[in-house]
Amino acid sequence: MKIVIIGSGNVAYHLAKAFSQKNIPVTQIFGRNELALKEISEEFKIPFSTSEIAHADLYLISVNDDSVETISAKILNENALVAHTSGSLPKEILQGNYRKASFYPLQTFSKSKELQYEEIPFFVEAENAEDLEVLRNLASQISKKVTISDYEKRKYIHLTAVFACNFVNHLFARAKEISDSQNIPFDYFLPLIDETVQKIHEIEPKSAQTGPAVRNDQRVLQLHEALIKDEEHLKIYKTINESIKKMYEL
Amino acid sequence: MKIVIIGSGNVAYHLAKAFSQKNIPVTQIFGRNELALKEISEEFKIPFSTSEIAHADLYLISVNDDSVETISAKILNENALVAHTSGSLPKEILQGNYRKASFYPLQTFSKSKELQYEEIPFFVEAENAEDLEVLRNLASQISKKVTISDYEKRKYIHLTAVFACNFVNHLFARAKEISDSQNIPFDYFLPLIDETVQKIHEIEPKSAQTGPAVRNDQRVLQLHEALIKDEEHLKIYKTINESIKKMYEL
Repeated sequence: MKIVIIGSGNVAYHLAKAFSQKNIPVTQIFGRNELALKEISEEFKIPFSTSEIAHADLYLISVNDDSVETISAKILNENALVAHTSGSLPKEILQGNYRKASFYPLQTFSKSKELQYEEIPFFVEAENAEDLEVLRNLASQISKKVTISDYEKRKYIHLTAVFACNFVNHLFARAKEISDSQNIPFDYFLPLIDETVQKIHEIEPKSAQTGPAVRNDQRVLQLHEALIKDEEHLKIYKTINESIKKMYEL
Repeated sequence: MKIVIIGSGNVAYHLAKAFSQKNIPVTQIFGRNELALKEISEEFKIPFSTSEIAHADLYLISVNDDSVETISAKILNENALVAHTSGSLPKEILQGNYRKASFYPLQTFSKSKELQYEEIPFFVEAENAEDLEVLRNLASQISKKVTISDYEKRKYIHLTAVFACNFVNHLFARAKEISDSQNIPFDYFLPLIDETVQKIHEIEPKSAQTGPAVRNDQRVLQLHEALIKDEEHLKIYKTINESIKKMYEL
């Protein structure tokens, strides 16, 4: 099976790397950013092009959500299977007379970070059973955790990830504003953060909840509200505490 | 120096363990819960009592915030130094004619979890320089990260921890409700969560932000709002996204 990867960002880079580690040949890596393509090409010995998409059996589109539709229209091979790697787009966003699919790795990717690919969940979707099997087999060569998932389900997977990762990161950013205001290095909080995450590997997050809201500790809750100077911090403080109280029926 | 630990919960357990590992003798562990005291006593060879507090130079009170005041009144030794381990109480909460102090380890403790004590930040406060030195020395035998911190500063440390840990855990709990609703194992999100936290060991959380809000991706934001059925989820979704937009001036 001839595979072309379209895109040169973090996801494209890690797909190329994962395939390379498993000796799965990639025919070409195609995109606009010549510098980024060249780097991937050299590191994993994959031909690249910025002008002409090679003929292949499977095209994997790993570009920004906004660009998937446009770039998908450039694939003119009607015998191909084309999959995008976005969590929040339906396969029908793809514009062409080919078989459409989705090949979604649930992870946040940075080029510089080593990842354990076998632990990354892949969610695959296709128009027919045969294509589904092709994608499932491919993903299974990289990862132990491959699931068939239609767009309805994938939307919720993405929403869960927004809560558990994007929003969590934002809380770190807001927390750092508070520690910065007192000249306390944010690094001091990393062991506590690591431990908070370690805990949910072993127990349900609902059972692991600590802090003033779940104790319904009015003294500390009022103390904190008086301490908080930033309007956005206060909104978050009140919203999350209310949500904690609702969850535990306090 | 004779040390007595008061309390038999998670913090008391880990203080006893940390002292034991560094061969710092503890004269007694005192509390109400005989079973818990017995376990600590047997594991670390420390005498325990539920009836009479032993004479000591330093008393470390590691009980629930609500109980600190009451139990502190039982220490009648006027020559002693008494410190509590709470992040959110002033040292003046202690009721007695002794020298008052605070000895605050910034970590979330479970008995069953091994911890690297040397990485746990300790914040110490006392009435005079000599006591401060005693506590700083003691903490330094356990940890590499010991800081002098008055109550004003400690309040903000605790508030930061609430955002970075208690609130983060609640987001995990809410995220799990979403994945549960689709029968997707929450375990699938753990590699992504781990990676999200790993990232902030290397780059500022503000620079690490991803997701639809920071991209100002109206399509996905609207899609998600339509997907969310739970009122509390929706409040969190809107509040955090608003806060992200404010932070990046979108």
